[in-house]
Amino acid sequence: MKELKVELGQRSYPILIGKGLLGDPELFVNIIHSSQVMVVSNTTIASLYLPQLLDTLADFSPLSYVIADGESHKNLTVMNEIVTQLLENKFSRNCTLIALGGGVVGDITGFAAACYQRGANYIQIPTTLLAQVDSSVGGKTAVNHEIGKNMIGAFHQPIAVYSDSDVLDTLPDRELSAGLAEVIKYGLIRDPVFFTWLENNIESLRDRDDECLQYAIERSCQNKAEVVADDEREQGQRALLNFGHTFAHAVETGLNYKDWLHGEAVGLGMLMAADLSCRSGWITETDLARIRDLLIKAGLPIKLPEQFEISNMRELMSVDKKAKDGQLFLVVLKSIGDAVVTNEFDENLLQLTVEQFSSVKGKN
Amino acid sequence: MKELKVELGQRSYPILIGKGLLGDPELFVNIIHSSQVMVVSNTTIASLYLPQLLDTLADFSPLSYVIADGESHKNLTVMNEIVTQLLENKFSRNCTLIALGGGVVGDITGFAAACYQRGANYIQIPTTLLAQVDSSVGGKTAVNHEIGKNMIGAFHQPIAVYSDSDVLDTLPDRELSAGLAEVIKYGLIRDPVFFTWLENNIESLRDRDDECLQYAIERSCQNKAEVVADDEREQGQRALLNFGHTFAHAVETGLNYKDWLHGEAVGLGMLMAADLSCRSGWITETDLARIRDLLIKAGLPIKLPEQFEISNMRELMSVDKKAKDGQLFLVVLKSIGDAVVTNEFDENLLQLTVEQFSSVKGKN
Repeated sequence: MKELKVELGQRSYPILIGKGLLGDPELFVNIIHSSQVMVVSNTTIASLYLPQLLDTLADFSPLSYVIADGESHKNLTVMNEIVTQLLENKFSRNCTLIALGGGVVGDITGFAAACYQRGANYIQIPTTLLAQVDSSVGGKTAVNHEIGKNMIGAFHQPIAVYSDSDVLDTLPDRELSAGLAEVIKYGLIRDPVFFTWLENNIESLRDRDDECLQYAIERSCQNKAEVVADDEREQGQRALLNFGHTFAHAVETGLNYKDWLHGEAVGLGMLMAADLSCRSGWITETDLARIRDLLIKAGLPIKLPEQFEISNMRELMSVDKKAKDGQLFLVVLKSIGDAVVTNEFDENLLQLTVEQFSSVKGKN
Repeated sequence: MKELKVELGQRSYPILIGKGLLGDPELFVNIIHSSQVMVVSNTTIASLYLPQLLDTLADFSPLSYVIADGESHKNLTVMNEIVTQLLENKFSRNCTLIALGGGVVGDITGFAAACYQRGANYIQIPTTLLAQVDSSVGGKTAVNHEIGKNMIGAFHQPIAVYSDSDVLDTLPDRELSAGLAEVIKYGLIRDPVFFTWLENNIESLRDRDDECLQYAIERSCQNKAEVVADDEREQGQRALLNFGHTFAHAVETGLNYKDWLHGEAVGLGMLMAADLSCRSGWITETDLARIRDLLIKAGLPIKLPEQFEISNMRELMSVDKKAKDGQLFLVVLKSIGDAVVTNEFDENLLQLTVEQFSSVKGKN
């Protein structure tokens, strides 16, 4: 078992990565200081892992609440349902919530914890690769608004993150690929050595080699923990973690959060941001080709979905959280392993990038 | 104009108390660092003061959003409506919201700001005495859940509080009295000298003597600012500010947030907490009589409403945010000017207190 730490003073917390964590009562006894515990999960994950976790937590007589599976359920209505459960069971603000699931479960449970009586504790038990390497770490919680993703949320750190690599056994291939998009992101924005390692090990990762997967999770979490420790509330470099995400959120919003996984949209979004960076003369064609190749080998889509209306792209991008006073800021690459936030991109080049990735025109 | 400061490091902010603040553009130019500004108000206050404020803010081309008046509208649905306005107008997270109204407007606007893209700025312009002396200061924001008041919220400090005493001219007498309840609270929990001053000046306050009112606001805000600076997130002594509030929230919930004003419920709640303190031998009958007399002179109700079912009281009290692992904690008095949080009260004495204040039995 590997242990990392997110260094945030009083809000510091451990990230444990290993096998069999879901079955280890001590991990919970050591960190939960209240008798009121509720596990939130979704239908898919609950059927696989909730009984085991509830058994592990037996000393706490935990409650559980299972929400529907999917990004479209990450909204205020479902968050309010979680709060209703807590109130009906007279949970106090020093209760502990446990998010057992992927990014959606983690985000909405974290946000419910952030808001419940102005702040309750929560533990993240991410069950997708994407959640293990990204969304479970760093305290960003949110729900979606129909106009934009993650528009209602809070910075609220968990008290622990337990990434059990055993649960990846049941992860569908498509979700594994989606998680690899966020893994690749760390290489692209700040860790060129890791990017090369990924180029050399992408097949093993897709074959679910346990050692490779644990290393990728650990190195990703290490990168994320460093960024979050330096900039908890995204005043500066934390924004780099959004590489590809402005494009991705536009795609997801255009698809009404359906059909594509978040990681798939991020993979394409990173490629589009890299394409724009190349058109702008900031990275070479060779770098762009390396990025495209790795994303393809990771099993990620590299064209916009056919049902996506590309004429809406620019408008959808403008509701991004990085926008300031109506100006759009994007994360772009200066090289593989070096990213910056800028609003000094050429709108015409951005337009060319969007057209380049249209499926309808049969390009790529 | 008086200026106080809430000392919270990077989150410190000024409280200005005086006349004509709503008409002073400089107050806003000096503190708003974005071009996107939206004023949130309610129907009652908007008709009185919104045009003047929008005129003062003309350089920002502000938007405004007017919500229905009343505690029952302080809910997630209305909060979501505010967010919709912000998103439809492409407001970024560095926008500024301005809450123009009483506690309801301040709480919901502050919570919308707390959650909007995980944290936008807001300014409090409280228009009731209660909001000026209490809810606008300290960063507690929230909306109500049908099971309990303020159950969904955040600690999110404003960037400034502007208390314009001119707006009290239009405040109904009943609302003035409700505000006095929170003013009296500071005397009871930590400022015995102020309590005596209030006993000597209660008639002038109800006659709206401007000098007296400004002094009461200033001294109240000073007390609140000190408590908040020491304990921003209510880990300790800030809980004393909830004196009377556990009773009050139970009454308000039992009435479905209708009929009674928050301050009226707090006034009665303080008297009930004082009654329990007296029955428990912690304060004298004389002290209890002084408290009752001042509350009566302030124009506050001292019996439970007739339509309130007292058999529900204890159950409604148990959803209070101060409850821990199902145990109820109450703020009680050790003397006038000295309050403590305790769970060591006698349930039978609490029952006697509740019965004592029943209107149905014709007591008091």
